[in-house]
Amino acid sequence: MISTKLTELLGIDHPVVCAPMGSVSGGRLAAAVTRAGGLGLVGVSYGDAAFIDEHVARAAEAGGVWGVGCVMFTFDTRPGLWDKVLGYAPPVIALSFGDADQVRKYVVSAADAGSHVVVQVHDPEQARVAVQAGASVLVAQGAEAGGHHASLATLPLVPAVLDATRGAVPVVAAGGVADGRGLAAALALGADGVMMGTRFAATEESLATTGFKSHLVSAHTADTVDTRAFDVVRGIPWDESYRARSIGNDFTRTWTGRDAELAARRAEVEPRWTAAVARDDTSQRAMFAGEVLDLIQDIQPAAQVVRDIVAGAQDVLAGLARRTGAPAA
Amino acid sequence: MISTKLTELLGIDHPVVCAPMGSVSGGRLAAAVTRAGGLGLVGVSYGDAAFIDEHVARAAEAGGVWGVGCVMFTFDTRPGLWDKVLGYAPPVIALSFGDADQVRKYVVSAADAGSHVVVQVHDPEQARVAVQAGASVLVAQGAEAGGHHASLATLPLVPAVLDATRGAVPVVAAGGVADGRGLAAALALGADGVMMGTRFAATEESLATTGFKSHLVSAHTADTVDTRAFDVVRGIPWDESYRARSIGNDFTRTWTGRDAELAARRAEVEPRWTAAVARDDTSQRAMFAGEVLDLIQDIQPAAQVVRDIVAGAQDVLAGLARRTGAPAA
Ligand SMILES: Cc1cc2nc3c(=O)[nH]c(=O)nc-3n(C[C@H](O)[C@H](O)[C@H](O)COP(=O)(O)O)c2cc1C
Ligand SMILES: Cc1cc2nc3c(=O)[nH]c(=O)nc-3n(C[C@H](O)[C@H](O)[C@H](O)COP(=O)(O)O)c2cc1C
Repeated sequence: MISTKLTELLGIDHPVVCAPMGSVSGGRLAAAVTRAGGLGLVGVSYGDAAFIDEHVARAAEAGGVWGVGCVMFTFDTRPGLWDKVLGYAPPVIALSFGDADQVRKYVVSAADAGSHVVVQVHDPEQARVAVQAGASVLVAQGAEAGGHHASLATLPLVPAVLDATRGAVPVVAAGGVADGRGLAAALALGADGVMMGTRFAATEESLATTGFKSHLVSAHTADTVDTRAFDVVRGIPWDESYRARSIGNDFTRTWTGRDAELAARRAEVEPRWTAAVARDDTSQRAMFAGEVLDLIQDIQPAAQVVRDIVAGAQDVLAGLARRTGAPAA
Repeated sequence: MISTKLTELLGIDHPVVCAPMGSVSGGRLAAAVTRAGGLGLVGVSYGDAAFIDEHVARAAEAGGVWGVGCVMFTFDTRPGLWDKVLGYAPPVIALSFGDADQVRKYVVSAADAGSHVVVQVHDPEQARVAVQAGASVLVAQGAEAGGHHASLATLPLVPAVLDATRGAVPVVAAGGVADGRGLAAALALGADGVMMGTRFAATEESLATTGFKSHLVSAHTADTVDTRAFDVVRGIPWDESYRARSIGNDFTRTWTGRDAELAARRAEVEPRWTAAVARDDTSQRAMFAGEVLDLIQDIQPAAQVVRDIVAGAQDVLAGLARRTGAPAA
């Protein structure tokens, strides 16, 4: 057992959170992580109402501490979704990617609804805003993350966020963690747990397609690229300060850095691209993944990932305690 | 005492290395770090022969385990410098920024001369090349580093380098570490020590100018930028895969991203820029610094930095051992 402020606050066994990956973290993955003693989150950033209902039901069914993760700015264009989320009464609501006004609005309303509110931040200033708004947990996400991210790296970001918020709430490290070494390092930085995306995408329960999963196993970190191309082709109005790390393919090689041209030619490119995605064409589809790819060699059951990372971190910390002569309790 | 494969190999007390910062890590700083039980390195990437002689002499005078750090590709345009470095017979030679052929050439000749050879790498492939060439220590440098760096972050890079080299040689983490939390995290990742640049630039003994030091204390991580502008204005032929993180100022705001134009207008811009640097004009000069700036609030004696980081890491690891129930030896 690794007990932290996060496990105590939420009443979970392990300080391990499954990232709310849109189209990847469905109800089965969330339930598996929750059942294994971590915190499972369903990503509701994409998908229609029926999809969301189905996956939330599956996560909730498993009981225990589960949650829903939302990309705040997408609520602007999806009327009713926020009320739908609140209606599920999830034990945890995770919020990411919003400006200060959105953070204040959604944190307050989620907390009023009785959920623990987890807010993802990318710099100390965002951390202060989230804590003032009433966040109960922060996720400090570094630029090595899979999917969308800002520019600062996890290793210097986590202690800076802790210093800026004076330890007011538990801080979870996200970005760059895939095994027990990463969890042990995050704890050493002062974090109270880790959120993993890429590692949980590479599990049996994730909704990642067969093609995407096979790339998660075979691709290397050096194959990843930071791109806005998938946002532009989908017409999703991501703030320009966020780029998305994906496994590179023909689509990223063709379009990365040509945002304006892609936007202009969307009517022509988008239908072909959407059709390619529908047939799981990995030369075209988004395959969000982070700099941890070199650490991932297999698709595993999510419960195994949770068990291994916790056992791995305990081994690391026990070994270090011996080597540094740290006194035991 | 934190004993690692690095401290055992080199016979030093603490797994803490002062980065060989050109124009910043002079003999006084290197000697202070070595005397405090770490590894002090003199940066000889810039400066004329007299400057190098003086600073190497000062580092050597202190005795103990010290070294010289060189940017490999600069040897091409500085005839005689490599023989000069070998002539000092430094206990340690640190090599950074060269292609595979340069790594092989300089590692072999440094090892033949009897020095321990430390090679900085930025991805698993470079790590394999350096180990095959005979490096005795690797520095895995992440993109959050101050000064020149590649693109992968320290947190996922360190374990990937260890896996790629199967722990054949000690690995030192560089980039994003400034205090005991960072050292503890690096050890948790499996690293055998840390190399710090920015934190040691902000010491009494560093050659950083008064203006630069005051910015190291007052600037925040968010004020740093990745730029090639200082390389272009100085006419130093850095490979385009490396950018340099610096505290942003009027010069970076004017020239970052306009490499070709700056190169074309160098005859006009360079003399004014050099004159501004000579009067320590912080609106113009390079002020290389990393994403750890938020963790640095003061200029300290280098020995204090070494003491604090070691004591801090021991505290962190002892605390974690208690919390995770790790058994003591
Ligand atoms: C496939 C994938 C999809 C993602 N989708 C989302 C999302 O919809 N919303 C979100 O807040 N973060 C998303 N992320 C980012 C994660 O929340 C998390 O911050 C990140 O994965 C952590 O870094 P790691 O990939 O190194 O574990 C996604 C990440 C991946 C890998
Ligand atoms: C002011 C400054 C100057 C640097 N100069 C050099 C150099 O001349 N040669 C080199 O190999 N690295 C240089 N670096 C990079 C360091 O070797 C080291 O990798 C880096 O500082 C580690 O990251 P940190 O700044 O987060 O500690 C420099 C870094 C700084 C901050």
